[in-house]
Amino acid sequence: MTATKIDGTAIARRIRESLSAQIKKRQETDPEFKPSLTIIQVGDKPDSSTYVRMKLKAAEEANIICNLVRYPESTTESELLGHINRVNNDPSVHGVLVQLPVPPHISELAVTSAVADEKDVDGFGVVNIGKLAKRGGKPLFLPCTPKGVMVLLQESGVNLKGKNAVVVGRSDIVGSPISYLLKNADATVTVCHRQTEGLEDFTKRADVVVVAIGKPNYIKGEWLKPGAVVIDVGTNYIPDGSKKSGQRLVGDVDFDSAVEVASQITPVPGGVGPMTVAMLLQNVVDSATNYFEREKARKF
Amino acid sequence: MTATKIDGTAIARRIRESLSAQIKKRQETDPEFKPSLTIIQVGDKPDSSTYVRMKLKAAEEANIICNLVRYPESTTESELLGHINRVNNDPSVHGVLVQLPVPPHISELAVTSAVADEKDVDGFGVVNIGKLAKRGGKPLFLPCTPKGVMVLLQESGVNLKGKNAVVVGRSDIVGSPISYLLKNADATVTVCHRQTEGLEDFTKRADVVVVAIGKPNYIKGEWLKPGAVVIDVGTNYIPDGSKKSGQRLVGDVDFDSAVEVASQITPVPGGVGPMTVAMLLQNVVDSATNYFEREKARKF
Repeated sequence: MTATKIDGTAIARRIRESLSAQIKKRQETDPEFKPSLTIIQVGDKPDSSTYVRMKLKAAEEANIICNLVRYPESTTESELLGHINRVNNDPSVHGVLVQLPVPPHISELAVTSAVADEKDVDGFGVVNIGKLAKRGGKPLFLPCTPKGVMVLLQESGVNLKGKNAVVVGRSDIVGSPISYLLKNADATVTVCHRQTEGLEDFTKRADVVVVAIGKPNYIKGEWLKPGAVVIDVGTNYIPDGSKKSGQRLVGDVDFDSAVEVASQITPVPGGVGPMTVAMLLQNVVDSATNYFEREKARKF
Repeated sequence: MTATKIDGTAIARRIRESLSAQIKKRQETDPEFKPSLTIIQVGDKPDSSTYVRMKLKAAEEANIICNLVRYPESTTESELLGHINRVNNDPSVHGVLVQLPVPPHISELAVTSAVADEKDVDGFGVVNIGKLAKRGGKPLFLPCTPKGVMVLLQESGVNLKGKNAVVVGRSDIVGSPISYLLKNADATVTVCHRQTEGLEDFTKRADVVVVAIGKPNYIKGEWLKPGAVVIDVGTNYIPDGSKKSGQRLVGDVDFDSAVEVASQITPVPGGVGPMTVAMLLQNVVDSATNYFEREKARKF
């Protein structure tokens, strides 16, 4: 029996369509409601430019205003912090996102923490992460990829309570925040990483495995417990002579062997990837909604 | 073979003596250097009063100024936030600590996050926790009990890199922050909690077990891997007719059976407990040192 594929493309499309409809409906009675995102890009890394283009396109389709502001690779940290501060203070902007990675001479922590908490639609600022890392904390925004993973699990009817969940990878952007979300959802969570001894011993016992390590086809089917739910966050390009581009996108999980063991699995592409952008748009709409509610309360 | 006891009392005493000597030495050349802690207590819960007294006594012994400010149980959240704000703005105070728990009508998150980040010697504010929960983040202060656990592990020569560490309990005060510290120390970390199915399966495989659940003698020796290092954060009073007080302090680990299986174990009392206060004093001295360095740089 092969695993059911979790169709991230379809789930993400439904969410984006629902957001678009939600915005239009609200604009009928409140024409000033114009959710708006500003993306700040430093330098012109081709990967980053691709991601930025995807975000711009998806925002436009969802009736979200999206402005891209680009600065040269040579921008200093203090210049960039000044740019962020200006957008923080612009009341027409509800979400501010600095496309990562920033050049090595700029501190990622300083930049992500400079975005105003109430516009931090990437959810990477220390205040939002700090609230996520506390049980009672209510972050204004969840980081997009981790939030997308949780929605996929929810939409797939996966019960997390008391279950053994293993997260492979401990990055600030994916692995660690996913582990906090899974813990808050009452799973028993293990975070594995490059220093882990006997990785298979952990994955073999897991009811849910989330992988975000950036290593093509690394996790094999025989490392999985039969019936496990597998979420593959990896996006790796490997050479493929049969493709016009000469390369092919694969995840961190060896899909062909894993699909024979798992009960549900996200494909790459078409799994987690599309969810990240959908969650970003949702965060921007949430932020705009909060802003308009605050304004209404203030004027009242 | 029985386990070596990790002597928290001795390690904590050494740290407190070292802090006291450090303060005196610095005062010889810089008589203005007077590390100062303000403890805010709301209500008069007997447990809280006991902890506060311990902190006051330890601070005095270490040449740290410690002021206790008490407010009635009926204090409102906004009154308390005002009190905190005043101490935040008092330049003679380097550490501010609100004794937890606060009464149920006051939000613990609001209170811990109201303490200025640079005086948050309990390390519970969202900014300090957020930095702890990010790999690159450098919190100004680590929460005292988790920091104490890490020092005990270090002093006991425990190598954490790649090791299987299981934390039982996911509180904001102990379990969760310890799991972040262990992850940053390159252990493979599993957080178990009341919803965990098959707790023994996790503890039996762990090289290091940290328990903070508030259940007397809950973790049995047969649930441990032979040679495991066991850190018991529990402080539970159970009835004991042979004691004058009619009760006895025990941990969350069944010491008598665990000591036969573990390689190293913290006793209760005399393990983690004394470390918490020592780490608090260290945080106050660190904060005062930072303050005096900032002032020196400013005046220069």
